[in-house]
Amino acid sequence: MNTPDLLLQNVRPMGEAICDVLIEQGRITRIGRALAAPPGVQPIDGQDQLLLPGLVESHTHLDKTLWNLDWYRNEVGNQLIDRIENERAYRAQTGHDSAAQSLALAREFLAQGTTRIRSHADVDTEIGLRHVEGVLQTREAMAPWQEIQIVAFPQSGLLQRPGTAQLLDEALALGADVLGGLDPCAIDEDPVRSLDVLFEIAERHDKPLDIHLHEAGDMGAFSLKLILDRTEAHGLQGRVAISHGFCLGDLAPPARDALLARMARLGVTLITSASPSRSVPPLLTCVAAGVRVAGGNDGIRDTWSPYGRPDMLERAMFIGMRYNLRRDDEIAQALHCVTRAGAEVCGFAGYGLAPGCRADLVLVPAQGIAHAVCARPPRSLVIANGHVAARDGQWML
Amino acid sequence: MNTPDLLLQNVRPMGEAICDVLIEQGRITRIGRALAAPPGVQPIDGQDQLLLPGLVESHTHLDKTLWNLDWYRNEVGNQLIDRIENERAYRAQTGHDSAAQSLALAREFLAQGTTRIRSHADVDTEIGLRHVEGVLQTREAMAPWQEIQIVAFPQSGLLQRPGTAQLLDEALALGADVLGGLDPCAIDEDPVRSLDVLFEIAERHDKPLDIHLHEAGDMGAFSLKLILDRTEAHGLQGRVAISHGFCLGDLAPPARDALLARMARLGVTLITSASPSRSVPPLLTCVAAGVRVAGGNDGIRDTWSPYGRPDMLERAMFIGMRYNLRRDDEIAQALHCVTRAGAEVCGFAGYGLAPGCRADLVLVPAQGIAHAVCARPPRSLVIANGHVAARDGQWML
Repeated sequence: MNTPDLLLQNVRPMGEAICDVLIEQGRITRIGRALAAPPGVQPIDGQDQLLLPGLVESHTHLDKTLWNLDWYRNEVGNQLIDRIENERAYRAQTGHDSAAQSLALAREFLAQGTTRIRSHADVDTEIGLRHVEGVLQTREAMAPWQEIQIVAFPQSGLLQRPGTAQLLDEALALGADVLGGLDPCAIDEDPVRSLDVLFEIAERHDKPLDIHLHEAGDMGAFSLKLILDRTEAHGLQGRVAISHGFCLGDLAPPARDALLARMARLGVTLITSASPSRSVPPLLTCVAAGVRVAGGNDGIRDTWSPYGRPDMLERAMFIGMRYNLRRDDEIAQALHCVTRAGAEVCGFAGYGLAPGCRADLVLVPAQGIAHAVCARPPRSLVIANGHVAARDGQWML
Repeated sequence: MNTPDLLLQNVRPMGEAICDVLIEQGRITRIGRALAAPPGVQPIDGQDQLLLPGLVESHTHLDKTLWNLDWYRNEVGNQLIDRIENERAYRAQTGHDSAAQSLALAREFLAQGTTRIRSHADVDTEIGLRHVEGVLQTREAMAPWQEIQIVAFPQSGLLQRPGTAQLLDEALALGADVLGGLDPCAIDEDPVRSLDVLFEIAERHDKPLDIHLHEAGDMGAFSLKLILDRTEAHGLQGRVAISHGFCLGDLAPPARDALLARMARLGVTLITSASPSRSVPPLLTCVAAGVRVAGGNDGIRDTWSPYGRPDMLERAMFIGMRYNLRRDDEIAQALHCVTRAGAEVCGFAGYGLAPGCRADLVLVPAQGIAHAVCARPPRSLVIANGHVAARDGQWML
């Protein structure tokens, strides 16, 4: 696809002084005052609006969403296992189309400025690789504009259903980017064997890991320790992320801080949805300890939860509210979780508002970062990989 | 003002079967199938959308908001007293216009379907009655469409600044509807005298009470007990509300349940913003104990907090998320906090979707209550006291 050059005039990158941004062949090539338009390029006037880098979703489940479908009446029980069982039953009944659903949600994410996504895709012995294949289709369809990473995710457990490890193996061979894990005590009920199997697959495929850890308190801390041991033993420093990590919100500071220090040393990161109804890792404490924290929606309107919207400014607001971040400088940290920190945690390359970076840009009618996070106005312009992808929340491609 | 008759056709009240609603002289007079339009009345087609009663905001601070002003850069310290002191300094510096600000926010509330509001208005020895007077102006300006209750609220404490009690007295004489209170231990540092002074004023003016209780754990429980003692002693059963009541989220079940049982007996209610960063009273437990719980935004974009939006469906969503309400029947409870329970807690008369009720109606393009709460679409039609007040979020008056 041909990528036309663009000149974006009169914008305030991260709320700083007004300048212009030149984009050539899908990359930012210059940022400065009164840049000349290349021949044949009609400049776009940014009207002094706030310019952000493309937003980053570090944890969602594109494959599960019911976005744009009829409302799903939720009558599900309150336990994790109820939700897992209900979802399997729903799929068996409906033949849920993970390709069409993930595409609908990915497009809406892009219209609201999200240019990079890490999505889990369920792998189990009933659906097999169907969800991974569906999201792979979406990854390919969106590739000209949006970068999607796929985590092969054993939602029903790794050990509980024989054959799952083999399926994860096949998912990675098929093109999944990351290996997923889930609660080695609470779901798999054999943490050592569960993690040994998981890390062996990751090492063999040379893939990073992203492990859902819902386990609370001491049990979660125990699982986390086992994960850190194996990160070290398998030489996977800098390549392991913990999603949720609720236990870090439960522990007393000495135990918590010892774990955080070790995570920082091993480059193990956190991905949080800032759940308002659970304990959550203390954001500012984690960052101060040197642990990177990215943000994600988790599921958006699926059989698990009716909440969520494919809007990373709204998620940044939830993060700000959950951590009681009220000062402008604190709210910038919430935005960081869904921009640069997300790119670093997931390993998205060429990220940022600087010459040489991939031209993923979001224009927001807001007076500054905190205003953008709190007001979440529709994005006035989204440039994705050098293409004008959306204006005022409406898809332009 | 003349109130034209209206016929609203093809709507689903609370998501139930499609019907029509006839409105005459500002009241709902009939609800049924295929109602005939009175002579000269052009029916409005509701297109099978969800019909809700006017939304109710039970706790906000219209007088403080910076809505529609330039973004306020928040550099305030994290303690309650920092925020109180900062706000007084900000006002002294800017001459904040509480009449214009409260009007701007009240109008936006109405455009999103909120037809009844309880707003606190600060009273202290520096601003005197200026904020009460400002919100009184707004109350009068909005009276044809929106009902606003004013709480005379001693934000800087009742005892700390001599002369405050006298000012509260004057505020009630001037037209404030409710007497407000604030943390008798943590702010006033003399709970018995503070509450004795407060209840004496309430009884003398025959006004209900709404007391901000931020105090946590045992201290909050102690203050709450003193409040319940005085509710009984002064014969104010059914006329006292506790705003926030964070302590009820901290206590062990036996102590909490004893307090809730006594609150239920005395008709003492709760008003929650479902803060995601604090302990909060357990909603379903409170309701099961017979304590009414209403919802409110608390401050919206002011020097205290940059968050919030005058949208009670969004607040219902925050309540749902905070309490992890995922099933449709649970989410209906979150909506209840910002509809009927709000009207009952604040004592708004003529509330509901039934013949005889005041014609406050909100049409939402949603498939049901849970969908409306989670998606929060712009209100397609707002009828306020029998008048078409807004369409698609745009003011029509």
